[in-house]
Amino acid sequence: MKSLHIFTILMITLLTSGFRVKDVHESYMNIAQTDSVLIQKHKSICEQLVRSALIERRGYKWLEEFCKIGPRLSGSTQSLQAIQWAEMKMKEIGFDTVWLQPVMVPHWERGTTEEAIIVNSKINNGFSLNILTLGGSVATPPEGITAEVIELRNFEELEKSAADVYGKIVFFNRELDQGQLNTFAGYGGAINQRVYGAIEAAQYGAIAVLIRSVTTKYDNVPHTGVVAYRDTITKIPAAAIGQVDADFLSSLIKAEVNLKVQLKLDCRILPDKLSYNVIGDVRGTKNPDEFILVSGHVDSWDVGDGAHDDAAGCIQSIEVIDLLKRNKINLSKTLRCVLFINEENGSRGSIEYARYTDSLNINHIAAIESDRGAYTPVGFTIENNEEAISNMQKWLPLLELSSIDWIRKGGSGADISRLKKTKALIGYIPDDQRYMDIHHSPSDVFEEVHPREFELGVSAMAILCYLISEEDF
Amino acid sequence: MKSLHIFTILMITLLTSGFRVKDVHESYMNIAQTDSVLIQKHKSICEQLVRSALIERRGYKWLEEFCKIGPRLSGSTQSLQAIQWAEMKMKEIGFDTVWLQPVMVPHWERGTTEEAIIVNSKINNGFSLNILTLGGSVATPPEGITAEVIELRNFEELEKSAADVYGKIVFFNRELDQGQLNTFAGYGGAINQRVYGAIEAAQYGAIAVLIRSVTTKYDNVPHTGVVAYRDTITKIPAAAIGQVDADFLSSLIKAEVNLKVQLKLDCRILPDKLSYNVIGDVRGTKNPDEFILVSGHVDSWDVGDGAHDDAAGCIQSIEVIDLLKRNKINLSKTLRCVLFINEENGSRGSIEYARYTDSLNINHIAAIESDRGAYTPVGFTIENNEEAISNMQKWLPLLELSSIDWIRKGGSGADISRLKKTKALIGYIPDDQRYMDIHHSPSDVFEEVHPREFELGVSAMAILCYLISEEDF
Repeated sequence: MKSLHIFTILMITLLTSGFRVKDVHESYMNIAQTDSVLIQKHKSICEQLVRSALIERRGYKWLEEFCKIGPRLSGSTQSLQAIQWAEMKMKEIGFDTVWLQPVMVPHWERGTTEEAIIVNSKINNGFSLNILTLGGSVATPPEGITAEVIELRNFEELEKSAADVYGKIVFFNRELDQGQLNTFAGYGGAINQRVYGAIEAAQYGAIAVLIRSVTTKYDNVPHTGVVAYRDTITKIPAAAIGQVDADFLSSLIKAEVNLKVQLKLDCRILPDKLSYNVIGDVRGTKNPDEFILVSGHVDSWDVGDGAHDDAAGCIQSIEVIDLLKRNKINLSKTLRCVLFINEENGSRGSIEYARYTDSLNINHIAAIESDRGAYTPVGFTIENNEEAISNMQKWLPLLELSSIDWIRKGGSGADISRLKKTKALIGYIPDDQRYMDIHHSPSDVFEEVHPREFELGVSAMAILCYLISEEDF
Repeated sequence: MKSLHIFTILMITLLTSGFRVKDVHESYMNIAQTDSVLIQKHKSICEQLVRSALIERRGYKWLEEFCKIGPRLSGSTQSLQAIQWAEMKMKEIGFDTVWLQPVMVPHWERGTTEEAIIVNSKINNGFSLNILTLGGSVATPPEGITAEVIELRNFEELEKSAADVYGKIVFFNRELDQGQLNTFAGYGGAINQRVYGAIEAAQYGAIAVLIRSVTTKYDNVPHTGVVAYRDTITKIPAAAIGQVDADFLSSLIKAEVNLKVQLKLDCRILPDKLSYNVIGDVRGTKNPDEFILVSGHVDSWDVGDGAHDDAAGCIQSIEVIDLLKRNKINLSKTLRCVLFINEENGSRGSIEYARYTDSLNINHIAAIESDRGAYTPVGFTIENNEEAISNMQKWLPLLELSSIDWIRKGGSGADISRLKKTKALIGYIPDDQRYMDIHHSPSDVFEEVHPREFELGVSAMAILCYLISEEDF
């Protein structure tokens, strides 16, 4: 597709200018020559960046330190420790400016009780299902909620079963579709039950929801994530259930009528809390007012280490700048690293950063977001600029040195996509086959990040920043 | 690079035929139309194949069964059990012909003793280094070999230290170069010490060799593999040492003069044994005498499960045929699955298969080998046919459905590359970043194979077989 696309653009250029074949030949020669000069000019620097990242693995060591702080849900003590750690690290590396941008963030705590116990089974009474409260959920009363469970697959079934839902616990049991190549597409097809299930079920009088974990891995680890509420609809407790126990519960419901579960959650919603985006700049030598942004989000869910989501994106962003610095490559434009707070449950960090940079008319030439895990790099997506896509595709022979095979149109990322005036909004895309196995779960830990895959991502983004700064696009 | 390449070919075609721009336009329209018709014609079948593989995971279940047999070194009981298992499975699936092609293979056994103990250290006496005998190594005498260890990095250092080597154990301590993107290139740069170290060291009178394991993972798991001998040079015992212990040994050698190790290996070389290639065909509906081969090697090293190397390649090859069959896609050409015996230490299986098919003038239209692990698919390499490369690149929009991003010139595989008359010799290339972590080691087990990555490989090869059979290239 890429080849055809480039060919089409070249052909249209040639056809509209009325050249004869001789001119076509010359025109092609010029293009080829320019490209080859460009490649030769930058090749050794790009090779050096890849080599330096793969051998020194400096970011990978930082990732271990960072993950040891623990999970970093917005408002938590650990999130503030992680912010401090990142501020110190940027200063240590020698960023020209490092500062913390204040942001008020939601503050929710899981508490210590999350139980779903089967209470009226003939043969499995007292069985405790493996659950994780969804982020932002309201609690149950201290004595819990005890009610019959009704199993549904989606909102269409919910509507059809409207009369049967009142006073019950709705169990949304739809699996992620494993048949799709892109696991994010599979995730997208199943995630409405987790995000909107509580709102939809409460409309029909349900008193709680249990959601089958949205994951590609068949095990019993529950996967959390945000649950949404609407002020006009009763807020009901919501929890995710491991896949194995989801199947077990489903089989019990089929075997025994009126199966009841007692659900106890003691999570709580606290007042908003002061937190921060971490912002660090290395000033450009020629055009310091033009900013190239590399970014991840510093918050995570409150289980595991949030290693892939998104400790990796944060540390990759810091190391992109360190990698260029330690290889003595000074860019003409300013490199800015932003670690956004609160991507997971509110996006307050990116809203505040966009408000602030819009008000000052800060000129973002490009923004790159790393928030899809730290597996082997495969491509970059560009959200808002067709011309930039075809221009940057000329850099592919250089980006291939770090395992990038394509540049395509596509979404950039939840945090940077608010920076609408940016010339190129870019998503860093690594391989995604394993990501949903661990996403938002206790399994998202440092040990799941592979050093070479992580460091190749650093080098891919560093090469892209370097080319964006030193070449036209 | 790919884009430029296609563009070049198109341009050359146009220029040599003296068209004017109008003709160029028409010519382009035809090409685009043909391609788009081709894509539309096959798209739904290709999507179906990917979906079927990812959801049903039939091969992944077989892989687990197959790995449970245990490691499958040529000549071992398990290798024969694995061959029988594969024969039965092909019959169960309903291959038209399944047979075992007899091959005499080398028969080496590790034995039960592999020890390297430090015997004259002041502070670490009696320390036992973590080693694995190299495949094919001669044994030590029962009482072992006790000698001073000399550390060298490569054959150049060996030559310079020639006078110091006599009567000693040579410790080749060169790491795999982690600075390269392609881990096979890194492996290639360090592997001569393992394969030829014993020959080279023995030339200068060394009495044994210890080799730093050639791997990308820093742990203490030793990685085995073949050691070569020459009949005219004394055969000396050879073992691999885990990376952590290699560094430990290196530090001890620096700290204490004349450091001695006692090496005991009771491996043995037995008479050649009868074994088999497993060959199964599903006959083509229109051109049954044109063969498309899919292949892996049924033998493995004698540690771990040999899951990635190359149980995965074997089961993928079987499932390629099953996947087409269970989706009721009958190809015009004959699909042949060959599981070669003895890839790891002698290539007797592929030599015999090539001899046999050459003698019968069997017409291999294409051969695909899967022997680089079962991680996420990235590309196919073609060894021997530039025209096939550019023709098959037109299929990329279909192959992309299974995560294949490119088709390039490159080696095909150790087994099929003997089939010189084949129109296209094709290597299946998955992501390689994790492969050398576990290659030839006890860590190469079923649990390291990811179901989605494995099944995407199956669908990628099935799509390629389907297109090779039904389209010109």
